[in-house]
Amino acid sequence: MKCEVVAIGTELLLGQIVDTNSSYIGEQLAMVGIDSHHQTKVGDNHDRMVAVLRQALDRSDAVICCGGLGPTQDDITRAAIAEVMGVELVRDEAIVERIRTMFGSRGRSMPENNLLQADVPEGASINPAMPGTAPGLICPLQGEYDGKVIYAVPGVPWEMKQMLAEGILPDLQRRAGFTGVIQSRTLRTWGQSESGLAEQLDAEIRRLDEVGGATIAFLASGWEGLKVRITAKADTEEQVAEILADEERIVREIVGDEIVFGTDDDTMESVVLQLLRDRGKTLAVAESLTGGLIGARLTGIAGSSDVFRGGVTPYDRALKLSLLGCPDVPAVSEEMALAMAERVCVVLGADVGIAVTGVAGPATLEGNDPGDVWFATCIDGVAEAHFLKMPFDRERIRQFTCIMTLNSVRNRLLAKG
Amino acid sequence: MKCEVVAIGTELLLGQIVDTNSSYIGEQLAMVGIDSHHQTKVGDNHDRMVAVLRQALDRSDAVICCGGLGPTQDDITRAAIAEVMGVELVRDEAIVERIRTMFGSRGRSMPENNLLQADVPEGASINPAMPGTAPGLICPLQGEYDGKVIYAVPGVPWEMKQMLAEGILPDLQRRAGFTGVIQSRTLRTWGQSESGLAEQLDAEIRRLDEVGGATIAFLASGWEGLKVRITAKADTEEQVAEILADEERIVREIVGDEIVFGTDDDTMESVVLQLLRDRGKTLAVAESLTGGLIGARLTGIAGSSDVFRGGVTPYDRALKLSLLGCPDVPAVSEEMALAMAERVCVVLGADVGIAVTGVAGPATLEGNDPGDVWFATCIDGVAEAHFLKMPFDRERIRQFTCIMTLNSVRNRLLAKG
Repeated sequence: MKCEVVAIGTELLLGQIVDTNSSYIGEQLAMVGIDSHHQTKVGDNHDRMVAVLRQALDRSDAVICCGGLGPTQDDITRAAIAEVMGVELVRDEAIVERIRTMFGSRGRSMPENNLLQADVPEGASINPAMPGTAPGLICPLQGEYDGKVIYAVPGVPWEMKQMLAEGILPDLQRRAGFTGVIQSRTLRTWGQSESGLAEQLDAEIRRLDEVGGATIAFLASGWEGLKVRITAKADTEEQVAEILADEERIVREIVGDEIVFGTDDDTMESVVLQLLRDRGKTLAVAESLTGGLIGARLTGIAGSSDVFRGGVTPYDRALKLSLLGCPDVPAVSEEMALAMAERVCVVLGADVGIAVTGVAGPATLEGNDPGDVWFATCIDGVAEAHFLKMPFDRERIRQFTCIMTLNSVRNRLLAKG
Repeated sequence: MKCEVVAIGTELLLGQIVDTNSSYIGEQLAMVGIDSHHQTKVGDNHDRMVAVLRQALDRSDAVICCGGLGPTQDDITRAAIAEVMGVELVRDEAIVERIRTMFGSRGRSMPENNLLQADVPEGASINPAMPGTAPGLICPLQGEYDGKVIYAVPGVPWEMKQMLAEGILPDLQRRAGFTGVIQSRTLRTWGQSESGLAEQLDAEIRRLDEVGGATIAFLASGWEGLKVRITAKADTEEQVAEILADEERIVREIVGDEIVFGTDDDTMESVVLQLLRDRGKTLAVAESLTGGLIGARLTGIAGSSDVFRGGVTPYDRALKLSLLGCPDVPAVSEEMALAMAERVCVVLGADVGIAVTGVAGPATLEGNDPGDVWFATCIDGVAEAHFLKMPFDRERIRQFTCIMTLNSVRNRLLAKG
């Protein structure tokens, strides 16, 4: 079973919007074991869209079209698919009602334009998920492309994701002749290289190759760490859940729990916030090098305010002394990092403190090279410092520092139990 | 003249890396007036790569291949292009020497693998820009695709960008029959809608349509504002520079200097830092809602430390009082924003202060809705507050607040002269 992705929109070709949807769909297809060998971007042009869809159907079994399902005259995906199917667009009155109800529930009346969204190619069915006003389409083909299928989803990421998960991946799996259940769990890891993980898991991957039931794959994600994806297939949800749980336990035993910071949608910051919440502890940050990045990432998570008290960014060395009461030691030093972590807890009234001081580059600072970083964590009054030396550019130095300091808090909290 | 983009790499299809290169190339092509109707991603597979290249040549005059020029066995773009050209790969000794010299200048000897990068299709020439060890290729076609051309660039963004600017866009322009010089200038704007700008510039765009010499286009870029791109064509560099300068002046007069915050690679934060630097002023931030985002953006710019003193993130309301000495008023209020901006200047010893307090959502806070934001700026002791009400999600509320507060500082500094 091969499935292509066609992303639709002139704004994608012009670089006004980066096409992240195709990447997401590609990842999801890989997760359920469906090959995707081509992804194409095409503009809002009927003839080119039709040609690209035909080309995709010539070489693949299924096509996911993303975008062009809105209510304006530009949104011509419905018509292009109808042409490829060799059918007319027909207005689906049930969809008209659903859209009308959606507008009504927000106290607004439906603009006439939105009727266009209820025009579907004859013979198409509607994706069971419909989080917005754009219905997703499942369009089975006949004749030349008999047995193949085109799916259409809106370009709005959260609508696309829901339709993919609920309406498309299960349908693709059925078409691939698989009648059971496939599910994946992603273990988010930090602190081990891809080759290191691959070596650790080599025997287990070979064991699974023989006994079946589950597969393991890696996804390298830069400063977001490495993802280890376990995919399980079985007849029932219960069996799949059991296989996933067993395999997660095995993988965690092999690579070590310290390496696995979370699963699926977890991020390092969401995991650290939850650990602190579970232990009834509050957090404060003192960021020199990162200039606010750690605080920004933490407060990007809804609900962070019950744990995160705040931060101080003493970018200028004098502020490390005046704002936090640190001693008069070199700005980038173990002593300064330790003092910042201890003092930010005291000054901001927090149980846990994170401190960062270092050189982001490109210039050296007081004899330190770009990428020289001291960071410290303080938990219940006990501070620990670490030194990093990173041969990276400014952005990567700051981002890697951010995740490594958070991971350090995580490990210390876990070690305390 | 139509030019397609083919991005090469299995990691792109699997979603491990988002293909931002194609978006960048698409934008650059649009800037010089070359149509790009298709962009395709294909994996590291010889046959599929050859098929995709042929397909692209069937419908376009030129193809830019991005990626697969590295020194490993995975890097098969060179071989795929050679097959499409119907020629052999030949080792280019001049390239071998260049790569050897590059390694030598870093005190390292060249690994044997890197010899592969000196294998080029017979008849191809080398892109004049070669910032890394991967040579870019310019491959003219004969026979079936006579007169067409394939360009190959590495997937490393900064190498790709330099080769595109220096070796590909000028060559494409020559092939399009244009022998003069084309250059663009992008005006970065904030504070006006796309339709508003289009209306303001309508007469000027129509005037240019008649008299020629330059064109104007818009690129909407979300919370990075709207870009207005002026493109000029003439016989010499001097003439183009003059046209661009004249047209920039005209556009600035029409839309207002307040709207145009920078040009080309400027960002709102780099512009604000430079304005402060020029005026000999220092900056401090007090961020509640944004949690460090403004400081993180400012310190993302190299050299920010001569202007940016630091920040305070009093996320918890009590810290607004204890850290900054703000009065005991509601957390999200005009009084609090003004006090935060004034006090952060005093406490951190800065000439200019920025303060933000608001509700990021999804929950309401003390009777304020998500998206309700008070921000204030304080310059030389004089504070001004503004209220925003944004029907956005958490990320957009925070990002829009960030750029709007910085823009407010910019406008006040400009107004002071």
